[in-house]
Amino acid sequence: MKERKLSLIASLNSQELAAKVSEHLTVPLKKIDVEQFKNGEIYVKAEESVRGTEVFIIHAPTGNLNENFIGLLVLIDALKRASAGDITVVMPYFIYSRQDKQAAVREPITARLVANLLETSGINRMVTFDLHSGAIQGFFNVATDNISAIPVFAKYFIEKSMDNIVVVSPDAGGTKRARSFAQLLNAPLAVIDKRRTSHNVATALHVLGDVEGKHAIIIDDIIDTAGSIVEAARCLKEKGALDIYAAATHGVFSEPAFERIKGSPFKEVLVTDSLPLSHSQEKIRVLSIAQILAEAIDRIHSNEPLSDMSLFKGTTLFG
Amino acid sequence: MKERKLSLIASLNSQELAAKVSEHLTVPLKKIDVEQFKNGEIYVKAEESVRGTEVFIIHAPTGNLNENFIGLLVLIDALKRASAGDITVVMPYFIYSRQDKQAAVREPITARLVANLLETSGINRMVTFDLHSGAIQGFFNVATDNISAIPVFAKYFIEKSMDNIVVVSPDAGGTKRARSFAQLLNAPLAVIDKRRTSHNVATALHVLGDVEGKHAIIIDDIIDTAGSIVEAARCLKEKGALDIYAAATHGVFSEPAFERIKGSPFKEVLVTDSLPLSHSQEKIRVLSIAQILAEAIDRIHSNEPLSDMSLFKGTTLFG
Amino acid sequence: MKERKLSLIASLNSQELAAKVSEHLTVPLKKIDVEQFKNGEIYVKAEESVRGTEVFIIHAPTGNLNENFIGLLVLIDALKRASAGDITVVMPYFIYSRQDKQAAVREPITARLVANLLETSGINRMVTFDLHSGAIQGFFNVATDNISAIPVFAKYFIEKSMDNIVVVSPDAGGTKRARSFAQLLNAPLAVIDKRRTSHNVATALHVLGDVEGKHAIIIDDIIDTAGSIVEAARCLKEKGALDIYAAATHGVFSEPAFERIKGSPFKEVLVTDSLPLSHSQEKIRVLSIAQILAEAIDRIHSNEPLSDMSLFKGTTLFG
Amino acid sequence: MKERKLSLIASLNSQELAAKVSEHLTVPLKKIDVEQFKNGEIYVKAEESVRGTEVFIIHAPTGNLNENFIGLLVLIDALKRASAGDITVVMPYFIYSRQDKQAAVREPITARLVANLLETSGINRMVTFDLHSGAIQGFFNVATDNISAIPVFAKYFIEKSMDNIVVVSPDAGGTKRARSFAQLLNAPLAVIDKRRTSHNVATALHVLGDVEGKHAIIIDDIIDTAGSIVEAARCLKEKGALDIYAAATHGVFSEPAFERIKGSPFKEVLVTDSLPLSHSQEKIRVLSIAQILAEAIDRIHSNEPLSDMSLFKGTTLFG
Amino acid sequence: MKERKLSLIASLNSQELAAKVSEHLTVPLKKIDVEQFKNGEIYVKAEESVRGTEVFIIHAPTGNLNENFIGLLVLIDALKRASAGDITVVMPYFIYSRQDKQAAVREPITARLVANLLETSGINRMVTFDLHSGAIQGFFNVATDNISAIPVFAKYFIEKSMDNIVVVSPDAGGTKRARSFAQLLNAPLAVIDKRRTSHNVATALHVLGDVEGKHAIIIDDIIDTAGSIVEAARCLKEKGALDIYAAATHGVFSEPAFERIKGSPFKEVLVTDSLPLSHSQEKIRVLSIAQILAEAIDRIHSNEPLSDMSLFKGTTLFG
Amino acid sequence: MKERKLSLIASLNSQELAAKVSEHLTVPLKKIDVEQFKNGEIYVKAEESVRGTEVFIIHAPTGNLNENFIGLLVLIDALKRASAGDITVVMPYFIYSRQDKQAAVREPITARLVANLLETSGINRMVTFDLHSGAIQGFFNVATDNISAIPVFAKYFIEKSMDNIVVVSPDAGGTKRARSFAQLLNAPLAVIDKRRTSHNVATALHVLGDVEGKHAIIIDDIIDTAGSIVEAARCLKEKGALDIYAAATHGVFSEPAFERIKGSPFKEVLVTDSLPLSHSQEKIRVLSIAQILAEAIDRIHSNEPLSDMSLFKGTTLFG
Repeated sequence: MKERKLSLIASLNSQELAAKVSEHLTVPLKKIDVEQFKNGEIYVKAEESVRGTEVFIIHAPTGNLNENFIGLLVLIDALKRASAGDITVVMPYFIYSRQDKQAAVREPITARLVANLLETSGINRMVTFDLHSGAIQGFFNVATDNISAIPVFAKYFIEKSMDNIVVVSPDAGGTKRARSFAQLLNAPLAVIDKRRTSHNVATALHVLGDVEGKHAIIIDDIIDTAGSIVEAARCLKEKGALDIYAAATHGVFSEPAFERIKGSPFKEVLVTDSLPLSHSQEKIRVLSIAQILAEAIDRIHSNEPLSDMSLFKGTTLFG
Repeated sequence: MKERKLSLIASLNSQELAAKVSEHLTVPLKKIDVEQFKNGEIYVKAEESVRGTEVFIIHAPTGNLNENFIGLLVLIDALKRASAGDITVVMPYFIYSRQDKQAAVREPITARLVANLLETSGINRMVTFDLHSGAIQGFFNVATDNISAIPVFAKYFIEKSMDNIVVVSPDAGGTKRARSFAQLLNAPLAVIDKRRTSHNVATALHVLGDVEGKHAIIIDDIIDTAGSIVEAARCLKEKGALDIYAAATHGVFSEPAFERIKGSPFKEVLVTDSLPLSHSQEKIRVLSIAQILAEAIDRIHSNEPLSDMSLFKGTTLFG
Repeated sequence: MKERKLSLIASLNSQELAAKVSEHLTVPLKKIDVEQFKNGEIYVKAEESVRGTEVFIIHAPTGNLNENFIGLLVLIDALKRASAGDITVVMPYFIYSRQDKQAAVREPITARLVANLLETSGINRMVTFDLHSGAIQGFFNVATDNISAIPVFAKYFIEKSMDNIVVVSPDAGGTKRARSFAQLLNAPLAVIDKRRTSHNVATALHVLGDVEGKHAIIIDDIIDTAGSIVEAARCLKEKGALDIYAAATHGVFSEPAFERIKGSPFKEVLVTDSLPLSHSQEKIRVLSIAQILAEAIDRIHSNEPLSDMSLFKGTTLFG
Repeated sequence: MKERKLSLIASLNSQELAAKVSEHLTVPLKKIDVEQFKNGEIYVKAEESVRGTEVFIIHAPTGNLNENFIGLLVLIDALKRASAGDITVVMPYFIYSRQDKQAAVREPITARLVANLLETSGINRMVTFDLHSGAIQGFFNVATDNISAIPVFAKYFIEKSMDNIVVVSPDAGGTKRARSFAQLLNAPLAVIDKRRTSHNVATALHVLGDVEGKHAIIIDDIIDTAGSIVEAARCLKEKGALDIYAAATHGVFSEPAFERIKGSPFKEVLVTDSLPLSHSQEKIRVLSIAQILAEAIDRIHSNEPLSDMSLFKGTTLFG
Repeated sequence: MKERKLSLIASLNSQELAAKVSEHLTVPLKKIDVEQFKNGEIYVKAEESVRGTEVFIIHAPTGNLNENFIGLLVLIDALKRASAGDITVVMPYFIYSRQDKQAAVREPITARLVANLLETSGINRMVTFDLHSGAIQGFFNVATDNISAIPVFAKYFIEKSMDNIVVVSPDAGGTKRARSFAQLLNAPLAVIDKRRTSHNVATALHVLGDVEGKHAIIIDDIIDTAGSIVEAARCLKEKGALDIYAAATHGVFSEPAFERIKGSPFKEVLVTDSLPLSHSQEKIRVLSIAQILAEAIDRIHSNEPLSDMSLFKGTTLFG
Repeated sequence: MKERKLSLIASLNSQELAAKVSEHLTVPLKKIDVEQFKNGEIYVKAEESVRGTEVFIIHAPTGNLNENFIGLLVLIDALKRASAGDITVVMPYFIYSRQDKQAAVREPITARLVANLLETSGINRMVTFDLHSGAIQGFFNVATDNISAIPVFAKYFIEKSMDNIVVVSPDAGGTKRARSFAQLLNAPLAVIDKRRTSHNVATALHVLGDVEGKHAIIIDDIIDTAGSIVEAARCLKEKGALDIYAAATHGVFSEPAFERIKGSPFKEVLVTDSLPLSHSQEKIRVLSIAQILAEAIDRIHSNEPLSDMSLFKGTTLFG
């Protein structure tokens, strides 16, 4: 009878999150030799056998996004040729997720291209966190599991035992996410409204809902240059909010994000380690998704539903 | 040297729009024999040669949506086996476009499935109108052209020489569409806001922007049961709007749409013939996309860009 | 180690046969939520986890053939995206099986199209009963198991302890099927001959073989409008046959089948529940294939050969 | 502007038919270098450019069937890599056409395999003659044109100005083919009936229809060992037929076909050159399909319908 | 829970090696019925169930290379349709491996074609021995294991306890192989140099390294017509070598190989049974790879790494 | 009738070679908008229509190899979705060409992966120059044209009217390339021999052939760190060679190549602009392949054979 063991593998420059998952799973990381030649070509080699095993590759890298992605594809090729039984790529932050449609003619749809490249290289399943657009799951033919990190943030605030909270969506599009977060915290909801009703007038921020005298938590999926959440924080301050927090799954933090956050009214900005933070930064706190990920991998490996996963009573991490 | 002629073909129950396109193109429709056996199986046969031609199938049917779609796939199979040189499906209203993501676990992504079924059957290109979600273009590997019907509505109102107009988006998500419509009409913009800020309170409609003493035109992509646009019209009326119009590319008109519109404050509700209207209905006016479609087909066939298409100076129908 | 459990699922409008199979297997049906929107679009959602399981979908529906087929494809998509380990579609009556070749130029080969659509949606195996044409198995790249229902009919007549039987093939093409049925019953064989030797003369039925003073059983694969078997029954009556029976795997029963059978010399017409009969009908008796199907599913799931299946000593249900 | 010229190429050991087609088309055969190494490996090389041309490969070989087929696949690979614009394989006799279904469990469906191998190698279209089973067209995803050689035989007998003819189908399955042949000759039809009504009695031949005092022409698709047609000829003789002919598209002529025909009552046995006859044989006459093939290729190349092809007024060669 | 048993199957004309592997594995060969019709078509049928098993097909045939390959593809099709769980083709000598690139324009790359044909037929993995070119593994998308037979030869010479050995590469390209062989024997290395420095001068053989007074073992991957190794042996003799051996994994032995070897200075020429030798031949000794193969199959079946396989301490058979 | 025009496009950071090709072809480069977001994601958009045209993308970039490759794939996706008629990627230096086989177990075959990624993205043809390994053409299913730059170097030396030349291959593996270069120059050949006959002795360079008193030209495909050609130059100097040159198609020039060449006995080192040289470097001369490329593109576009291309009488640039 064939056994199918679990192989856990860190993708290029992804040791940080992978090591934490490995610890939670009590499954050691398989040794992979990675080198980069002087002309830039990436070389990988699996130092240990993965034959017939169910491989999970953790891809949450620091450094050059495109190089790391090529490195991932090369790694998948090596594992496929080494007779891996099944390959799941865990990519908490899905790259190119904001190029998911053509905003103008003759544009690419790069998120679909990324899906095609992964499938061609030989993957059998994807695991992501808080995808920017749900349609990206439809770019794949293989099964995909999209996990939510929102309960991680909810747990953090619940354990803080904060009272008098209001959850704030930074724009109309994020209302659904904010509402489910508010339900976890049993808190009311407010929405920042970028009213741009006529085309010659500058945008002004309005707050729909009551924030005065409340601790406000802005919830989002991605923080990139941090422009809009910092602006939102200022607006909330003006409207009389007390402590102001932000929580977002993916901390891309392109310049000048750190500078902006430092000078903002935020008390704390929370992100997960879906994208590693090279140095600790003022006001920014990182909550880890490693434990959730470990449980998800364990459930996938043992064919148990992910929909039963829960950080605390009555919540689900999935869907 | 090989010539590649154009074959124009009406899909099942799609003679209405196809005939108009045929007239504009001055290209006759190829004769297709369609039968349905008593057990429901659909039979098609091309009565004329399509060998080596560039085939355009117009699919804008009346009747059973799923049956018509199976009929389309059977037709594609017949044409592919009859040595069609190239097959473009023109599906102005893309079916299952609202099932473009998983709103809950273990749901299908049916819009992607539809794309897969069409590609497997043998198509080489798609033409659609005002897709509900731009990501659907990413569900295809073949090239897709998504045309906008908004200039058709703009032309209608410009020719009416109406003054004092405000364009209204029925929800925050449709603001981008409404803004580009407003630009064509050189009119201001308002947005209907479904404020649902706390989770125990009923939704109330607010209007962001000034509508009092103005003729209001609500713009949307799909009118299905007409619930939300009729509600929006009432709200606009309360706020002092004068004549109220709605314009939407796709008139699905599921029950009780006609009833609702009849009893509404609307002066006129405009849709296109992307979905045929079996009988004329009170207050509903149908503007045809046949001429645009004819021009698009002609340009695709002669390798000219669609981005140059224009109904009137300074507008584009594409993207 | 990975276990692979069995998930049994009823396709759209296929609860009747699926429930019987479920009972024989003592495996409950997984709960599937199915809805149809007013515009005709079908929505499905698996309410229970199927992750990593070996899924068997029973597709033997009542109602609209094409809608049910689209529903099946949507269901397959949902299960594939829900990480089903393996998907087998059990379609006792294979739709469009009579469009398995081009009888004229520019026809489709719809049975091949159906195979392509199923494979694209994500199936891994097919199970069918008494396929109209053996070549349809060649339309699939995935493995297909085609089971015979003939022993079900044989068992019925053997248990009746009828003597003095003759088995009758309704045309020359069905002789092989009739001969294997005759062997099970240890009975002689007759063939109805539609002699159409010159092209201006009307068809006349001849009976090759001796039927006088015998109980005749006509055996066929499909009864559609019942025209030819009723004509055959009349001819057998004239030639002096005693009780006359018909047995066919698939009771399509398009109009005016029930009317014709009612007014015919048949004592009894036997079909299976490969296609559900909404109401009981005069002279028509339905024998169930549920038990055979349950055994086949059990054997496929446990990797035992289907060729060993037997309803009674010395027969096989397969091939 | 791109021109697409026609390249005509003889497959391995297929010079005979290819040369005749070349002459009819007045298009020279492209030079192909073919070698076979001592260990059996086949080497081919196109000596002339085929870049961007529409290639037609004539495959009607003498010698080892399997070796010639491998040689064909190797040739297709070479032409695809040499930038052929489009590749059509003309295989008048489709190999493995009698293994088109599983007659028993665990058999292959080799005709489907052949289709897969051709498609994988890079073909874009197939041309065949009188396929043994129409379902084989469904084994291909690419377009296939199946041409009938029956008018070639009809023309031969019409030019002979024979009177008093009866057309004979050698079995019930061939009645459709025989009837269309009889219509071309305006002659009556008879059918040989292999009555095997009970399973312990030897087969006896019966003739349905009147043959006495008439010249009989048996029509079939394949003559392999010639056993059944020779038996049929004897039976016709007994029944009083005058001159007896046979006509079949494909002369496979496996041993002891020539011996049997020599000793038979046949006046003449007609076949086409779909399979080359190495030596002239007593009583066997070969009619060429080269002219039809040349016209078909010309029509495919110039995108004209094949259904208009005709050898003489009122007939079609296609479907 | 699903078990996955091992099925061992001999491909056409491959009983010799397959039987030995079967004995080492103590797993009986599954019974396959193979027939060849008079027109050359090959028929196969699996007589025993392979449902859900992990199938290993041993393809090391005698006779016609192309016919045997077609037979292999037909066998794969039959097994795939019989629900084999997984199919591995063991082809110790990879056919057409010397046509792995285009030496001139418009040539095929037949080794890639062979890979495509195998993948299309339905294989899941390949096992080969000492591939002529490593790039052939890159012609496959499925996993491939390439095993080395060099340790088999090393073991033979070590057990002979020969002293004073020099390992000889017959050309510069084979130096890497020879060096690893020399390491196993702890022997020095020499290289035959075909110096062809100016283009008008005939080739002369030089020996780089010291062979005088030593027993020389020439090592190569393929012996075809044996021209170059016999020439090399003569040259070594001239340079004062004592006993001269050759060892090559694949004994193709095209004419006049046996004649040449018989008349050569070789003491013994060693090959493996990757290609069966119909009769014993003077000076030629066959060492079997059956035991290695049996171990490799066992390891693949039980998901153990092949890299740990060893014939004797400190060696690996893989890579 | 459909025209198919030529679109010439510079890939990311490939303007240098693309501009030269554009000038030779007198076809302007299509305008492409390229941006890189702060997080590294690449955005491209075709500013001009490519609908139905035959697109040639020149990919010969400066800068980050992996980023440029991702950028190429994104560009291909954009062009495919913009209805490009046909896409040819011209990649003079094929990246990852040295990872064309597994040198050890569990390595990737990255050159095959690159081929798969390009095909998946939507290319129809490849053009390369002096591929490191001919088998890479076999990694593609699409047609590939591999052009030789050797005549470019030959022309340079012929125009210099140098006498008394010897062509030198830097190792045994390059003898074939060197011999064809020597034939163009009508010069004798020498080979550098890295004799490593026993495994404990350091490598020593030998020169096979006569170089004393001659001008030596070393010919190779790639110069990376320049270690071996500089070593070879020193050895030639010792053996009495006069002026020493090197010529290689691809100047990768990884560190410390420039330093080494500067301090070497070389008079001149020639490379092509298949890889752009950012600054002029001492002793290094760049010859352009732009004219050859322009001619190749023109011939592909007009379906003329590449094998007729010639830089001067009697030579071919192809194969």
